[in-house]
Amino acid sequence: MKKYDVIIVGSGPAGMTAAIYAIRANMKTLILDKLAPGGQMINTNEIENYTGSGVINGAELSMQMFEHTQQLGVEFDYKTILKVEDKGATKVIHCEEDNAVFEAAAVILATGTVPRSLEVPGEESFTGNGISWCAICDGAQFRGKDVVVIGGGNSAVEESIYLAGIVNQLTIVTMFDLTADPKACDKLRNMDNVTIYPYQDVLEFTGEEKLTGVRFKSTKEDGTERHVNCDGVFEYIGLKPTSKPFADLGILDKFGCIIVDDEMRTSVNGIFGAGDITNKKLRQIVTACSDGAIAANTAAKYVESLKD
Amino acid sequence: MKKYDVIIVGSGPAGMTAAIYAIRANMKTLILDKLAPGGQMINTNEIENYTGSGVINGAELSMQMFEHTQQLGVEFDYKTILKVEDKGATKVIHCEEDNAVFEAAAVILATGTVPRSLEVPGEESFTGNGISWCAICDGAQFRGKDVVVIGGGNSAVEESIYLAGIVNQLTIVTMFDLTADPKACDKLRNMDNVTIYPYQDVLEFTGEEKLTGVRFKSTKEDGTERHVNCDGVFEYIGLKPTSKPFADLGILDKFGCIIVDDEMRTSVNGIFGAGDITNKKLRQIVTACSDGAIAANTAAKYVESLKD
Repeated sequence: MKKYDVIIVGSGPAGMTAAIYAIRANMKTLILDKLAPGGQMINTNEIENYTGSGVINGAELSMQMFEHTQQLGVEFDYKTILKVEDKGATKVIHCEEDNAVFEAAAVILATGTVPRSLEVPGEESFTGNGISWCAICDGAQFRGKDVVVIGGGNSAVEESIYLAGIVNQLTIVTMFDLTADPKACDKLRNMDNVTIYPYQDVLEFTGEEKLTGVRFKSTKEDGTERHVNCDGVFEYIGLKPTSKPFADLGILDKFGCIIVDDEMRTSVNGIFGAGDITNKKLRQIVTACSDGAIAANTAAKYVESLKD
Repeated sequence: MKKYDVIIVGSGPAGMTAAIYAIRANMKTLILDKLAPGGQMINTNEIENYTGSGVINGAELSMQMFEHTQQLGVEFDYKTILKVEDKGATKVIHCEEDNAVFEAAAVILATGTVPRSLEVPGEESFTGNGISWCAICDGAQFRGKDVVVIGGGNSAVEESIYLAGIVNQLTIVTMFDLTADPKACDKLRNMDNVTIYPYQDVLEFTGEEKLTGVRFKSTKEDGTERHVNCDGVFEYIGLKPTSKPFADLGILDKFGCIIVDDEMRTSVNGIFGAGDITNKKLRQIVTACSDGAIAANTAAKYVESLKD
């Protein structure tokens, strides 16, 4: 049984910053994640709003942050978390792999979010076989082909700009209008090979062996239905908090986000939240880092208080 | 008369991040500062908690952040701000140099803090002539000499560790005990050439032409008085918000910090606060960056709303 002062679940910018602050506060610190460090950053092509990094690839920034934690001596373990148990002064973390169990005085939950899906006919069967959630991972295989992007927020627009530079025709189908940064929206609208259909409901993904298109219906224009032929689809329709393992703790809001106060405390003593998983307003790398710093600072004070 | 969408006053990490977010939101953006970009970072020797940067010199991180703003096209002007006037949809910024005046739809105040002084006899006359607030700026001139550090918080302890590697004897005189990160305190306590006097009031700085020492008195031990000989003094006794030019706006708390809500709004429409200047709990580079991102996001939405 390994016992730590602080265990951080999740290794995105919030988790890694929490680790940096926790270990600098003399806490024996461990990060657990089932995936490689970086969180959603890893799937982002160009990041240009992490202060001081200029334009940087998401995987590269992930690696820089992870190396930073390693320079300071943070431990990292690949584990899938099943459950976090509150036993007062000790928190017990149960993992899938080898039924591993870890104990810590404090736990910081920073598991972030995963992309949401549409749940319409054809989606499941074409997932990973025509439908993707990651332009930087899968964009290159659609070079010179036609793709549809579903969504109109920041991710949808930014990834569409990236994809439009690769593919032949790009069609955007979105439930409302584009809601991303005005600068990014303008840039996308001015691209020659881009067509935008706002106010649409996606009805189904068509095709037999292979994806061949998307059928959607206007929520205006008396419900006009359209079918656009395509070779690939990228979905950017929002994010789902990765909070199932924490459901029993009574710390989630109705959307599944962790409710925290301004020092990142949950309603359970010794359990803290940080980053996209929390009920926050602006989900960005720098705001996640800030959450991590605050959570670790509060957690370290909590752990010290247990020693009195 | 130059008119901007967003003017940011102050170019520390909060101001520079605000600029990055404002210009990416298509705002015509200007930063004003009387000093070189970086804020308090510039006076910090080693920074090891800005996620992804590992161990980095403060001036170097300042320059990386400034270059990032320049890559995106942010304007910067050296100006000393005298007053910010609220004229509803327009804010007017009055500067000392050439009576320059700037107008903006929204203003983000990110002027940070400056080091506090003790206000005891001898302090004023030896300032810049034996008494310093910046180990990285002035430490080298005390190589092999004896210095006293006043203070026991994070800055005092971190800069003492740095100074102890340069000087002969280092004495710390502090009002309470050391209150910095436990790891840093341990490191300092284990250094051979360091003596710590906790629970002391500084009475005066002694010397005639030159600083020769510090006289202080225990707040315990029946008020024992001591005099320690030294060639230099470094003061790290807290920070004073740089908020005088904003006093008329009615947005300050009793400590002179700007009162903001969780989206960085002040009580004046179109005026926002970010970073150390605000009434926040944890003043760190990453938390300042986060404030800047949130402030610019809220400011950009405010500016867009004026166009409706």
